[in-house]
Amino acid sequence: MASINANYFELQGSYLFSEIARRVAKYKGENPAADIIRMGIGDVTRPIAPAIIQAMHKAVDEMGAASSFRGYGPEQGYDFLLEAIRDNDYKARGVDIATDEIFVSDGAKCDVGNIQELFAQNAKVAVTDPVYPVYVDTNVMAGRAGKFDPAQNRYSNIVYLPCNAENGFVPALPESSVDMIYLCFPNNPTGTTLTKDQLKPWVDYAKKTGAVILFDSAYEAYITQPGVPHSIYEIEGAKEVAIEMRSFSKTAGFTGLRCAYTVVPKALITQFEGKAVSLNELWNRRHTTKFNGVSYVTQRAAEAVYSPEGKLQIRETIDYYMQNARLLTSGLTKLGYEVFGGVNAPYIWLKTPNGIGSWAFFDELLNVRQVVGTPGAGFGVSGEGYLRLTAFSTRENTQRALERLGKK
Amino acid sequence: MASINANYFELQGSYLFSEIARRVAKYKGENPAADIIRMGIGDVTRPIAPAIIQAMHKAVDEMGAASSFRGYGPEQGYDFLLEAIRDNDYKARGVDIATDEIFVSDGAKCDVGNIQELFAQNAKVAVTDPVYPVYVDTNVMAGRAGKFDPAQNRYSNIVYLPCNAENGFVPALPESSVDMIYLCFPNNPTGTTLTKDQLKPWVDYAKKTGAVILFDSAYEAYITQPGVPHSIYEIEGAKEVAIEMRSFSKTAGFTGLRCAYTVVPKALITQFEGKAVSLNELWNRRHTTKFNGVSYVTQRAAEAVYSPEGKLQIRETIDYYMQNARLLTSGLTKLGYEVFGGVNAPYIWLKTPNGIGSWAFFDELLNVRQVVGTPGAGFGVSGEGYLRLTAFSTRENTQRALERLGKK
Repeated sequence: MASINANYFELQGSYLFSEIARRVAKYKGENPAADIIRMGIGDVTRPIAPAIIQAMHKAVDEMGAASSFRGYGPEQGYDFLLEAIRDNDYKARGVDIATDEIFVSDGAKCDVGNIQELFAQNAKVAVTDPVYPVYVDTNVMAGRAGKFDPAQNRYSNIVYLPCNAENGFVPALPESSVDMIYLCFPNNPTGTTLTKDQLKPWVDYAKKTGAVILFDSAYEAYITQPGVPHSIYEIEGAKEVAIEMRSFSKTAGFTGLRCAYTVVPKALITQFEGKAVSLNELWNRRHTTKFNGVSYVTQRAAEAVYSPEGKLQIRETIDYYMQNARLLTSGLTKLGYEVFGGVNAPYIWLKTPNGIGSWAFFDELLNVRQVVGTPGAGFGVSGEGYLRLTAFSTRENTQRALERLGKK
Repeated sequence: MASINANYFELQGSYLFSEIARRVAKYKGENPAADIIRMGIGDVTRPIAPAIIQAMHKAVDEMGAASSFRGYGPEQGYDFLLEAIRDNDYKARGVDIATDEIFVSDGAKCDVGNIQELFAQNAKVAVTDPVYPVYVDTNVMAGRAGKFDPAQNRYSNIVYLPCNAENGFVPALPESSVDMIYLCFPNNPTGTTLTKDQLKPWVDYAKKTGAVILFDSAYEAYITQPGVPHSIYEIEGAKEVAIEMRSFSKTAGFTGLRCAYTVVPKALITQFEGKAVSLNELWNRRHTTKFNGVSYVTQRAAEAVYSPEGKLQIRETIDYYMQNARLLTSGLTKLGYEVFGGVNAPYIWLKTPNGIGSWAFFDELLNVRQVVGTPGAGFGVSGEGYLRLTAFSTRENTQRALERLGKK
């Protein structure tokens, strides 16, 4: 028989959001008339901005004419998009990133899932807890997580860094040696973030120990407060220790269009058997061997995100969602709930009332109030006793969800 | 220091098509006025068909309106596309495939590169030789290929199945036990294919030994002769042993739009420690954990490939390319070249004249005749002494390339 990757058997249950979808579908099947408000999966609801729609129509027409048709593009992305990213997301913040340090992809979930391939199978992984499940699951699949311990609800070979109300959701540095550190700020799921001063020790730690930081900044567009870095490269020395992953999904509503990018600086050098190894070169090799570029139409859409009209229109949408976030945090607080996040992120991290478990609270919200959240326990042990709500609904549904949560 | 995936250091040089692009760019840099005809990379040149363009415009407009906007879709693809694939690519050929056995993706290169993740690190891989480099390189990256032997120009732990003029490009069954067998028919790069009678022994062999066949049928739309299977599932019992990978890239010119799919039948069961393991379930877990679906606009484009107008328009384009293939095979034969393929595939496999090496012939064509092919040696040891030309150029460039090849 064919030998199978037995690491898959260490995975616990199904992927979190598939499990939520399954429970919602079951409830919907049994209650077809139910008017469910979905604030579980972090999906946007506002349409794509007009400037982007216009750019896509133009690109579609180009694909339909022999003189302007484009086949395979560069796997790393077209220059027009790489330059727009470099200028707007980095140069404008005083960060110098070259276009050949940027790799455009079809989604941050893919990049976040694939990046671990560059590391040895025995590389040690650190994650914050709670955490986006993809970081952990993809390392389980690669055999890097060790055995699952049901008593601890944790993997034996992963270093967990708890984030909770007690430490203000600021993780402590790892106490043991690690090779890869996943950080996501503004944070999914807690909606909290780090200031520059709070992020700096991580860069220093990585420099000292040789660890690589895998920095997921998919939510940077939602930062409203000064002093919160939009890119880890705003921290001195970060180019020598960090890979940064960004997405157009939350910035510009591309969850159904699929575009993201990863920055692997050329200054990020590690050693192997006494020789310098460039992670930029490794990732380039992976990207060109296992990936064939993003749709030209989508890349033109992403370029339009940076046009003057695009910027204005996207800002409007983000403001709309952040107004939802403010409504939720103030409304829930008034209702007596304890809430975190929602200031620099589209996520509200809600403490479940009366110490009820995350999944029990999830089920109650679904069955009694027809509101779908994401159970905090699905993100890790330290997420138990919390539930994540997103600000990505419509204004109307956000208000209706609040009313439902207020009903005794 | 962070521990790096040392398997990458076993990779030989850069990815084949990147190396070709590099040489062409160098020549172009030194000879900016050169009028180069590109028949190297298997990229299409005809624009996207009008029915598909129309479907994309409609989908773009949907994304721009709140009432019809779509965010995250199912990772596996929308039902409208899964059903079109099931009905047109399978049911129409008497093959019964369920929609939950089909996984839509952003490219066959990705699927072909990722599928090996389901197998153990010590699983034994068999490939035909010459072969599409992605099959080998992705297994090298996963540590499954062993050491590279420069004397043999082969990896120690891969089973190579030579395809050459002597055996009519029909590989012999592996002599030693293997777990994974990559087959691509119609074949890239040789342009040859197998009849049903020639493919049947592979299915029987896999059933007997428990090996899994990874069947790449990206070029099935180019089959012109009866008796040549378009899907491996046309062979009895294949659903128990084979995964099939298909692409819209060559069928409908989607190289710049990115859409493909993989079929993993539920009948494909292997054993692990005495328990039955469904490869469909494993791939579903991988797909939902590391991938987030294909652009809605692209999926609507792919759906339109199966519309009555779409089918007619696509057939015209394929006929156009196959007329190029006929021009090339007859023209090159008249010029005294020995050629293979080009009948059921858009590739012509040209024997280099006077026993000259593949890369030397590539360089001569580039430097002297300004025609870019793909050196056969880039596809493996048995490709040495051959060069691949594609039928994907315009008619005019195909004819001009022929003239240039005929010049003394």
